[in-house]
Amino acid sequence: MIFLFIFIIYLVGFSSAVENDTIVLKSKQCKKFEPYWANLDTRILPQWYDEAKIGIFVHWGIYSVPGFSEWFWNNWEEKEMVIQKFMKNYFAPGFTYQDFAPMFKAEFFDPNQWAHLFMKAGVRYVVLTSKHHDGFCLFPSQRSFSWNSCEVGPKLDVVSELSNAVKKVGLKFGIYHSLFEWFNPMYKEDKKNNFKTLYYPNMKLWPELKQLVNDYKPSLLWADGDWEAYETYWRSTDFLAWLYNESPVKEEIVVNDRWGKGTSCKHGDFYNCHDHYNPGKLQPHKWENAFTVDKKSWGFRKTMNSNDTMSMKEILHEIVTSVSCGGNVLINVGPTQYGTIPPIFQDRLLKLGNWLEINGKAIYGTSPWHNQNDAINSDVWYTCQKTPYNALHPTAKPLITDTISGIFAIFLSWPLSNRLILKDVTGYIQTSVYEIKLLGNDGDLSSEIKNGITYVKLPDKATVVVEYVWVLRFTPK
Amino acid sequence: MIFLFIFIIYLVGFSSAVENDTIVLKSKQCKKFEPYWANLDTRILPQWYDEAKIGIFVHWGIYSVPGFSEWFWNNWEEKEMVIQKFMKNYFAPGFTYQDFAPMFKAEFFDPNQWAHLFMKAGVRYVVLTSKHHDGFCLFPSQRSFSWNSCEVGPKLDVVSELSNAVKKVGLKFGIYHSLFEWFNPMYKEDKKNNFKTLYYPNMKLWPELKQLVNDYKPSLLWADGDWEAYETYWRSTDFLAWLYNESPVKEEIVVNDRWGKGTSCKHGDFYNCHDHYNPGKLQPHKWENAFTVDKKSWGFRKTMNSNDTMSMKEILHEIVTSVSCGGNVLINVGPTQYGTIPPIFQDRLLKLGNWLEINGKAIYGTSPWHNQNDAINSDVWYTCQKTPYNALHPTAKPLITDTISGIFAIFLSWPLSNRLILKDVTGYIQTSVYEIKLLGNDGDLSSEIKNGITYVKLPDKATVVVEYVWVLRFTPK
Amino acid sequence: MIFLFIFIIYLVGFSSAVENDTIVLKSKQCKKFEPYWANLDTRILPQWYDEAKIGIFVHWGIYSVPGFSEWFWNNWEEKEMVIQKFMKNYFAPGFTYQDFAPMFKAEFFDPNQWAHLFMKAGVRYVVLTSKHHDGFCLFPSQRSFSWNSCEVGPKLDVVSELSNAVKKVGLKFGIYHSLFEWFNPMYKEDKKNNFKTLYYPNMKLWPELKQLVNDYKPSLLWADGDWEAYETYWRSTDFLAWLYNESPVKEEIVVNDRWGKGTSCKHGDFYNCHDHYNPGKLQPHKWENAFTVDKKSWGFRKTMNSNDTMSMKEILHEIVTSVSCGGNVLINVGPTQYGTIPPIFQDRLLKLGNWLEINGKAIYGTSPWHNQNDAINSDVWYTCQKTPYNALHPTAKPLITDTISGIFAIFLSWPLSNRLILKDVTGYIQTSVYEIKLLGNDGDLSSEIKNGITYVKLPDKATVVVEYVWVLRFTPK
Amino acid sequence: MIFLFIFIIYLVGFSSAVENDTIVLKSKQCKKFEPYWANLDTRILPQWYDEAKIGIFVHWGIYSVPGFSEWFWNNWEEKEMVIQKFMKNYFAPGFTYQDFAPMFKAEFFDPNQWAHLFMKAGVRYVVLTSKHHDGFCLFPSQRSFSWNSCEVGPKLDVVSELSNAVKKVGLKFGIYHSLFEWFNPMYKEDKKNNFKTLYYPNMKLWPELKQLVNDYKPSLLWADGDWEAYETYWRSTDFLAWLYNESPVKEEIVVNDRWGKGTSCKHGDFYNCHDHYNPGKLQPHKWENAFTVDKKSWGFRKTMNSNDTMSMKEILHEIVTSVSCGGNVLINVGPTQYGTIPPIFQDRLLKLGNWLEINGKAIYGTSPWHNQNDAINSDVWYTCQKTPYNALHPTAKPLITDTISGIFAIFLSWPLSNRLILKDVTGYIQTSVYEIKLLGNDGDLSSEIKNGITYVKLPDKATVVVEYVWVLRFTPK
Repeated sequence: MIFLFIFIIYLVGFSSAVENDTIVLKSKQCKKFEPYWANLDTRILPQWYDEAKIGIFVHWGIYSVPGFSEWFWNNWEEKEMVIQKFMKNYFAPGFTYQDFAPMFKAEFFDPNQWAHLFMKAGVRYVVLTSKHHDGFCLFPSQRSFSWNSCEVGPKLDVVSELSNAVKKVGLKFGIYHSLFEWFNPMYKEDKKNNFKTLYYPNMKLWPELKQLVNDYKPSLLWADGDWEAYETYWRSTDFLAWLYNESPVKEEIVVNDRWGKGTSCKHGDFYNCHDHYNPGKLQPHKWENAFTVDKKSWGFRKTMNSNDTMSMKEILHEIVTSVSCGGNVLINVGPTQYGTIPPIFQDRLLKLGNWLEINGKAIYGTSPWHNQNDAINSDVWYTCQKTPYNALHPTAKPLITDTISGIFAIFLSWPLSNRLILKDVTGYIQTSVYEIKLLGNDGDLSSEIKNGITYVKLPDKATVVVEYVWVLRFTPK
Repeated sequence: MIFLFIFIIYLVGFSSAVENDTIVLKSKQCKKFEPYWANLDTRILPQWYDEAKIGIFVHWGIYSVPGFSEWFWNNWEEKEMVIQKFMKNYFAPGFTYQDFAPMFKAEFFDPNQWAHLFMKAGVRYVVLTSKHHDGFCLFPSQRSFSWNSCEVGPKLDVVSELSNAVKKVGLKFGIYHSLFEWFNPMYKEDKKNNFKTLYYPNMKLWPELKQLVNDYKPSLLWADGDWEAYETYWRSTDFLAWLYNESPVKEEIVVNDRWGKGTSCKHGDFYNCHDHYNPGKLQPHKWENAFTVDKKSWGFRKTMNSNDTMSMKEILHEIVTSVSCGGNVLINVGPTQYGTIPPIFQDRLLKLGNWLEINGKAIYGTSPWHNQNDAINSDVWYTCQKTPYNALHPTAKPLITDTISGIFAIFLSWPLSNRLILKDVTGYIQTSVYEIKLLGNDGDLSSEIKNGITYVKLPDKATVVVEYVWVLRFTPK
Repeated sequence: MIFLFIFIIYLVGFSSAVENDTIVLKSKQCKKFEPYWANLDTRILPQWYDEAKIGIFVHWGIYSVPGFSEWFWNNWEEKEMVIQKFMKNYFAPGFTYQDFAPMFKAEFFDPNQWAHLFMKAGVRYVVLTSKHHDGFCLFPSQRSFSWNSCEVGPKLDVVSELSNAVKKVGLKFGIYHSLFEWFNPMYKEDKKNNFKTLYYPNMKLWPELKQLVNDYKPSLLWADGDWEAYETYWRSTDFLAWLYNESPVKEEIVVNDRWGKGTSCKHGDFYNCHDHYNPGKLQPHKWENAFTVDKKSWGFRKTMNSNDTMSMKEILHEIVTSVSCGGNVLINVGPTQYGTIPPIFQDRLLKLGNWLEINGKAIYGTSPWHNQNDAINSDVWYTCQKTPYNALHPTAKPLITDTISGIFAIFLSWPLSNRLILKDVTGYIQTSVYEIKLLGNDGDLSSEIKNGITYVKLPDKATVVVEYVWVLRFTPK
Repeated sequence: MIFLFIFIIYLVGFSSAVENDTIVLKSKQCKKFEPYWANLDTRILPQWYDEAKIGIFVHWGIYSVPGFSEWFWNNWEEKEMVIQKFMKNYFAPGFTYQDFAPMFKAEFFDPNQWAHLFMKAGVRYVVLTSKHHDGFCLFPSQRSFSWNSCEVGPKLDVVSELSNAVKKVGLKFGIYHSLFEWFNPMYKEDKKNNFKTLYYPNMKLWPELKQLVNDYKPSLLWADGDWEAYETYWRSTDFLAWLYNESPVKEEIVVNDRWGKGTSCKHGDFYNCHDHYNPGKLQPHKWENAFTVDKKSWGFRKTMNSNDTMSMKEILHEIVTSVSCGGNVLINVGPTQYGTIPPIFQDRLLKLGNWLEINGKAIYGTSPWHNQNDAINSDVWYTCQKTPYNALHPTAKPLITDTISGIFAIFLSWPLSNRLILKDVTGYIQTSVYEIKLLGNDGDLSSEIKNGITYVKLPDKATVVVEYVWVLRFTPK
């Protein structure tokens, strides 16, 4: 039997005109975007991003040398005690942040090894900090003479190296770029002028962004450092109109929501809102939960202890809850100054890859289901598989007839009784015949319903190969 | 009921005169040792070492800077390709190994944090490389002017720092010391003279060793780098006689077996034989299995991947099999040039600590049992608890009446059937009443015997908190 | 008796309207200059510059670290063999010019000591390379983020330090600034566009130049690096109009002639024409002979030998011949990377100071005389003292009645006969009574005239304290 | 006419048995020396040294990097304020003297260029600091592992490089070696033991000295740093006996007098007594005046000003007065850390060479004359030329019939009157006929005697090419 699900206006506020299918929606992308939000916001999210679900975030830069965090320079200037003490004890007076640059040698950097690791981790895209708030560019910026990775430090076009390697293994490549630079005198001048002058955006930011887009053709652009000034200063809508209309990646590009004071959580192809954003509820707009395996820093931290890192359970918790609620995750790692991914991060990523190899079908290309978190078992989160694939997007306002070909109940702890209690699926399995399987184990599972609650009999735990988090798949027969 | 076990000459070759108890044996230690092996070999192993079972080995030095392995210098001199290439690509011609020294800054070295980690890992002693084959001393050697950690690099008496911290948390401190130095011109001169001159041992080695013993009062001395010359060159027996008779640690000190060509596996308080030594059989003499968590290096390796490290299962396998056969283990970690224990190592050590917290009673202070590896279940290894404690030592030649107060069957994989098959305990539980428990779980376990084979019914796996390796304790009632 | 000399149109081309005195001329400076040469060229040279005669040129920058020459970077890029070899032998592959910056520490830089030395040398102005062709700024340029002496290297505003010190001892301060930067990507982009885009001048050059003028209020601006593009690209006339009309130094500022392809020797307050320019003839426009004590480099050269340096005789030759022909001299020294003036340069400067202490009256504030180089004694050059002071300037077009209160005959070698032969003064001393003195020696000298040639009897050489070059002063009685 | 001078016991204390000629004396050198001073003191000074008169002293080492003086390390340890401040301002806390070593790169060191310079300077021997009090060896000492110029810093056997270059241009090579090392722990141990233990001399000093003598075959050994202990500690007489009897340079070697507390000015082939020793009177034993062109330091000093250096007059004053009184001079220069002789030193040396080219015959191979400093003209000092050459040496006790073939009257200032007044020559020119010449000028000079005082009529100063100091040669006809 085939389970047909009529997907009608299931989110509050969806009401207006309806498109017939995603092909049509896509062709709409051909229109010319205009540089104001109301118009830009009508853009349809490119499908690859919604299907990808999991990305890697890489924070790498000169801050990896002192190894405190990517905010090192700023915190030093602001007299953070531990940094003050460190600098006083181990460096000559007058040592500047710039003096760390020659030590950022990246001598063991092997982009193909990174790409291979990311592929094995099961992620679908990789986002690299092309420039963080310190302004140091990991590419030969035409507007950052002597303050980029080709002229000091690694002597490499890091963006190019990683971009090529990542694309070679079939992943998408994204670029993080900080709009502002803490200490760039042009930016400081504009700021002193209450952002009435635009020296910095005109002379520095846009030439750099265009260079990045034209030279590396990224699939994703992750803006940051936008919060001190309005979009009118950054000229964000102008830029996005160019990006969507004319750039070489106009079809594929996806951008986040940090394009000026007040844009976050409001505009952009997907929303990051704030770091570690994980609302726990289905969202009307595509979003992304960016979090970091080292709980205390995005950049490499030399004093990172294993206790500071997220456990596999914690990482999977973020993934499962985010994907269930319509989000992606962007998992951050900070490589060392010499160019390696710390083994503790590799450990997590490889374990994630193993987990996804079996359980990935509950993640990649899935859609949010009717329910997200089971009504009585808070350890259980749902996703589903629709045919045809149907990305959730508010502007889609769909009345699509699609088929749910599978429901995934993902449970974050194993019941001591070996019996999983569920509420939200009861209605379905009462009315249709479902095959229930534990991903990774053979054999159908039996279930019974009592008082509207479903009890699934799990296999003996000793026979289960999956660790940390488990997935039940309900397939309509 | 009390189970009495008469421990009679259970090892081939034990036959001669018998001492009444270990107190007597210990007082024998008061005798004056003479500088030849036959005499030195009669020394009774200090009890602390046998009871400790688990130590940490720390390889730290200038080689941590390039981060290839502790043999970096030698391999470079021998033109190892990957090192040649690395040096050619990232350093000026003429750069020497000595030039790495200023970069060994240890700026994040916190000896108390290390000690705390080791304590939480459940190890009982810590052995530090006071000097490796490169000759660089981690202490202010009076014979290594300008080539020690107080004058170049960390500017710290590392041996003192770690020794104090380790003792403060109640662990024993041991010192690794390389007898030879690859490139010390005095040593090279002696070598050219076929070791007929003794410039190096007289002027360098013994002053240094005595300084170490007198200043840091280690409980353990781990000699290495002995293999190119006979003990007569190193003057090992002289030194040991001094160490056993006159040194401030004469009661407590324990030494290994690397004291000159041919001494390994033959002389010394305990035998290391070769690295990773794990004979799999009960040994007549106390021994130690030194292995390294990074399978490819003892010193910190910058390109170490998580896949190169031992898993918890592998580490526990080494511990269980070694302790069962009368050995200790010395688990090696290589700290970074900036003074931290890499998180991947912390991860292993903390997990080991968790495991030992529950299962340590099957390890610490145990003795080998009649059998080591179960006759039909090769995944099971035994240890036992004797009262009074009775260290295995060939010179003990004991006819001691001691009591076994517990037998531990340690199993390395969980049976899918939740039923553990054992052969070697059958005779005991057939004749006496035993309580059987899974460490970490409450409740006695039932068992049945069929055809001389014991079947223990394990708890439901979903209720078991211990991971990786499990321990059944058989306690006579 | 008073000698009156009617100074009438002695240079070809002087013919038109006549101003009455320099006061009038000066007030003309109050007019508004317009940004084209014909207008800018009408500016009257500020008097201080013409009177000063001798300045010091200081080439200091990152090139002082490798110590080859100020063109090091360019020559390296152009594969100069000796540099290639040096870099290959002593630096890691991939070492960049920027990597030299942290070594430029200036730890012994004492601007007051420099200023004191320059004062003792008898110079009247000091010109510092605020930025050379490498683009590295010795001041906190608002347009050279992370590539200036406050952020890398000395961690000092060198321009400010030296400017203050120099002014404190009463000397004028001048700023050298390279218009182009070999490797600035903005400049390279403009160049690729055949200088049809003006990114670099608009975004980099003019903000920097204005910052320099506004912040340090120099008395002199010495442009360089102009030759690849026309003044229209550099927007030179615009800048000069601003400088002459609005800048805080509009009265005092003096600029040279390097403001774009074809401007050299044609426009500017004074002409440098080419380096080491010394035409040997009286010039219609104020000019300056910039030369360097190390004959082989302007920047500090580590392999400089004493033989490569100008002797006192050579230096005085340049001074005497230049001043005689209406020029100034700008004597260059290149300080070390650690901030000192090499002793060999000090030696020359202090000897110059000693010489000027006695003979300065033949140099400072003098005017060219009717003749420059004596008609028969080529070792003799003339200057004179006019009252009121009357700077030579083509736009002055003077018919000034001024008084020559002294003629100086400067002779570059001592006649073995102790008798100086002169031709050009004969007419004067024949018609008037002159007192003749050797500067530095007391007593009037006798002379006789034979066949139109004057023979001055010099003092016994053993009694002469002046070395190298000597001055006879003819004073009308 | 030939002037015969019978050289009879002209020094107080010369009285005993007489050898016939220097050939005989020399063969006496073949005897076996015994290790006590009374015997060692009978050694005949090798003739080359007495004839050479002028040597160069080179202080080069790690102290050239900070560039304060060769006592930098010691003064730093003793809290010299200026050093404390320098280290605090420009280096990280914990920076050690050893950390300067990698910066001592000697990248522009060209030993042949040095040798060529020394040759052109007219010196006859070159003494290099093979090891100063810091213990850093400029050669691959077999007893200074990792603290020598082959392993850190220049990566060169500097002693070998310079020795070969110097010998190639025909000069003698000498080695300076500090007996003690401020901070060598072996030395400090001996010192703490009141020099009753001899660890340091036995294990470090003598092996090193023998290596130097055997490997580089120096003609001169310049001991220093001896003053804290008696010769019995240093085992100096043992060493000298070996040096004189067995070493490969036993014929040629010359040593100074710093061989233990109390030996200075008493024992050794020549006496240095104290630095800058210049007694102003004829000495009974060969001696040497070691002085330094930079008046404030022997090692390179970064803040050296030209005013701190000796003028040519001062240098020649030292040479003339020393040679006149039987001494040699050893003129010190301190090269830079990058391996060059500062131009200011080159300037002095080349001027010295020029002076010696004309006036060398009054210096090289000369003997002291009857008188040294003229009785009435204190600016005049005498040397003379004897045939055969007859070195002054107390053990020679000669009654040699030799011929004085020339008397040199060297005058340090030119008389304004062009007339030189002399007393001591009067007796000679009264009784014999002498030709008088000013070296560098042609033509005999006339003289007259009045009241026992000689007046020599000098040439017109304007015709004299020699600068600074002048020589009159009196040759008997």
